[in-house]
Amino acid sequence: MERVKARTLSGFMELLPAQQVQFNRIKDILEKTYKRYGFTPLDTPVIEASEVLLAKAGGETEKQVYRLTKGDNDLSLRFDLTVPLAKYVALHQNELAFPFRRYQIGKVYRGERAQRGRFREFYQADIDVIGDGSLDIINEAEIPAIIYQTFTALGLTQFRIRVNNRKVLNGLFAVLGLEDRAGDVMRTIDKLEKIGAEKVAAILVEDFGVSTNIAAQLLELLSAEDPLAALKSFRGKNELLDQGIEELCTVVKYLGDFGVPADHFAIDLTIARGLDYYTGTVYETVLLDHPEIGSVCSGGRYDNLAEYYTDKQLPGVGISIGLTRLFYVLQEQGMLNEDLPTAPADVLILPMTDDLSHAVAFATACREKKVRAQLYTEPKKFKAKMNYADRTGVPFVAFLGEDEVANGVVSLKNMVSGEQEKVALSEAPAWLKEKVATLNVGFPIKE
Amino acid sequence: MERVKARTLSGFMELLPAQQVQFNRIKDILEKTYKRYGFTPLDTPVIEASEVLLAKAGGETEKQVYRLTKGDNDLSLRFDLTVPLAKYVALHQNELAFPFRRYQIGKVYRGERAQRGRFREFYQADIDVIGDGSLDIINEAEIPAIIYQTFTALGLTQFRIRVNNRKVLNGLFAVLGLEDRAGDVMRTIDKLEKIGAEKVAAILVEDFGVSTNIAAQLLELLSAEDPLAALKSFRGKNELLDQGIEELCTVVKYLGDFGVPADHFAIDLTIARGLDYYTGTVYETVLLDHPEIGSVCSGGRYDNLAEYYTDKQLPGVGISIGLTRLFYVLQEQGMLNEDLPTAPADVLILPMTDDLSHAVAFATACREKKVRAQLYTEPKKFKAKMNYADRTGVPFVAFLGEDEVANGVVSLKNMVSGEQEKVALSEAPAWLKEKVATLNVGFPIKE
Repeated sequence: MERVKARTLSGFMELLPAQQVQFNRIKDILEKTYKRYGFTPLDTPVIEASEVLLAKAGGETEKQVYRLTKGDNDLSLRFDLTVPLAKYVALHQNELAFPFRRYQIGKVYRGERAQRGRFREFYQADIDVIGDGSLDIINEAEIPAIIYQTFTALGLTQFRIRVNNRKVLNGLFAVLGLEDRAGDVMRTIDKLEKIGAEKVAAILVEDFGVSTNIAAQLLELLSAEDPLAALKSFRGKNELLDQGIEELCTVVKYLGDFGVPADHFAIDLTIARGLDYYTGTVYETVLLDHPEIGSVCSGGRYDNLAEYYTDKQLPGVGISIGLTRLFYVLQEQGMLNEDLPTAPADVLILPMTDDLSHAVAFATACREKKVRAQLYTEPKKFKAKMNYADRTGVPFVAFLGEDEVANGVVSLKNMVSGEQEKVALSEAPAWLKEKVATLNVGFPIKE
Repeated sequence: MERVKARTLSGFMELLPAQQVQFNRIKDILEKTYKRYGFTPLDTPVIEASEVLLAKAGGETEKQVYRLTKGDNDLSLRFDLTVPLAKYVALHQNELAFPFRRYQIGKVYRGERAQRGRFREFYQADIDVIGDGSLDIINEAEIPAIIYQTFTALGLTQFRIRVNNRKVLNGLFAVLGLEDRAGDVMRTIDKLEKIGAEKVAAILVEDFGVSTNIAAQLLELLSAEDPLAALKSFRGKNELLDQGIEELCTVVKYLGDFGVPADHFAIDLTIARGLDYYTGTVYETVLLDHPEIGSVCSGGRYDNLAEYYTDKQLPGVGISIGLTRLFYVLQEQGMLNEDLPTAPADVLILPMTDDLSHAVAFATACREKKVRAQLYTEPKKFKAKMNYADRTGVPFVAFLGEDEVANGVVSLKNMVSGEQEKVALSEAPAWLKEKVATLNVGFPIKE
């Protein structure tokens, strides 16, 4: 037979079993945390009609889309989870209760240039709260709590949630007479951390004709240690700015009650998060020891989710975690907790008798006790069997020979300590359950 | 702005929030059960190189494939989870420990003719055990236990696992001199339940030249109440047949120890499950009250998983549940348990004060206790707020007004009974947790 070379496409993450368990552990924690905050699960199709999916798209996005024809249909694979959400909410608006809070963790597709750490198929883990006509500011104030809880539950401590408000930025630009250059100015100040204040000032003055005085004023404000205090002198000069400051104050006011420690949060007036979409609070999250990664959780408030599909005004606020990329980076950085079990089973049962009845019954008893059990009955040498146990990383091996069966016991070997003891068959499942529980303690990520 | 009509493609299931919760509940139970039996999670890409994915395909399958070109790449969306598994095992054979036990629950794509209850994007929930060169029969004997536990955990009692062995069929055909017409005969006897013994006999005789005597002999055996006993007279006539009978006996022998009640299991010599692929035990599962649905969980033993990709002999056994179709049918039949909560939150917190600090702190305390909490702060009338609670189906509403805050209590309303009581703020999260636990008792499916 002529064979085809088995291969996985470049840019498509495919994990080995132990890694997949680590990945799923992180995914499960995201899901659990999102649920805790009252978000409902959503699962929209991966494929949509191109005319629907690309209603807004254009430029770079549209070039990256995986598009195909099937019969007479022009179809596209989703490139994010926001456009499908917009479609879903527009389509089902009469069947949903608003505010509509949904999470979706799913694969999206972008035909980006292949490079290390960039994926063409990747998971996004999104939450959004969508209001009907209006949406209270408390929803924006709650987002830092969700980010904080999510990353804390993963085992991270060295991270900071950076927050800004687009109304503050746009209001400031108006006050400083920079409205007509808002996009250019925003893109420039976004580089502040990377290139420093001096260079940013130079670009503003030389490339965009900002006066030296205004540039200095802007940079002083952006670099202020206490941005809210520094904004005080701008109050009363512009309605939008006042509103933005008010909103930032509300977000800060409830932080403590939402359980977010002050040192995990910072107002950062340089954050913009794209030019077109966001209209209020915006968020970024950085790992303090790995700033080179960039933001690992971003989002913000927008005024109109689904304007391409409906007249209905649907303001919302949402954040997204690029899970595949995050996992890749954590793995690269050696930040995955290797102490947590990754074996498919808690116990590997090795029968040493011809009749397997006792071994099968023991496996069944373990499973009834929620102990993950695997029977291993391949006719291999003892060494090969123990080698299999080692390779899968199973924490316990159960031996059931004639002796054990005759005495109603099972020999249980702890594969880490090497200790082995005989336990009554009837008690062994509970014994295992207790031991296994102690192994599953700890966070999936360690710093 | 010109608007695009929001729509979801025909043949693509998109659920409303409450349905999605019901769907996920079933999916979670499948996953939990599969894990209990020592299967490791796998998540392969949805897109593969066409030359890899279609190495074996042809005919109807290939016509249904969603295929696209991206740059220079000829790509296809997976149409099942078996071919990606074959690719995965061939590709990673040196990094895997055999037997390799994996589960995968994921979406697959087939451009079938659109019709009610048929989906073009649907979930399959598969398990497979792959051996390296050989695989012990106990793995085939274990499958009915996994099917039984899975469906029992879903709340089903009226189902039966039907088992056959392809070696028995092929051995029988050899003994009866029907080897050259094996495919035709198999397809004909597969219709036994539908068209009856008489018509099957007529087709065998008239269309395929089977002698009346042989047809009668075959049909007597296939209709036997105790197929194993009926097979006794065929023993010793054909090696393959003997081996098949032996294997069937082993499967039956361990049923009890695997926890499968006899009345949920039947040997059915008419089951073939496709002509090319399976070589040993084959499985079907029928809902006794809904035979019209056909098999809801099928699979079998195969001799060579990845022959298109590798020289390595990789025998295996696996089953698959067509989850999307199953869910659709359960919904159609009114078999989803509507008593289980589907709300995104356990408690909806309605603050009645301007300052939200207490409400926010209460929400945080609930979440710390794993109570799913949602703050509702939209400036709506009381009736609209309660209407929102009703529409989402949230089981408890918490009122926090000036009085409550002053007295350190919260008013908790049970939305089902209508009862309302004041509980100390510090005790309310635990109170809710206890009440909510009693709501989440029961199976997702009721018969």
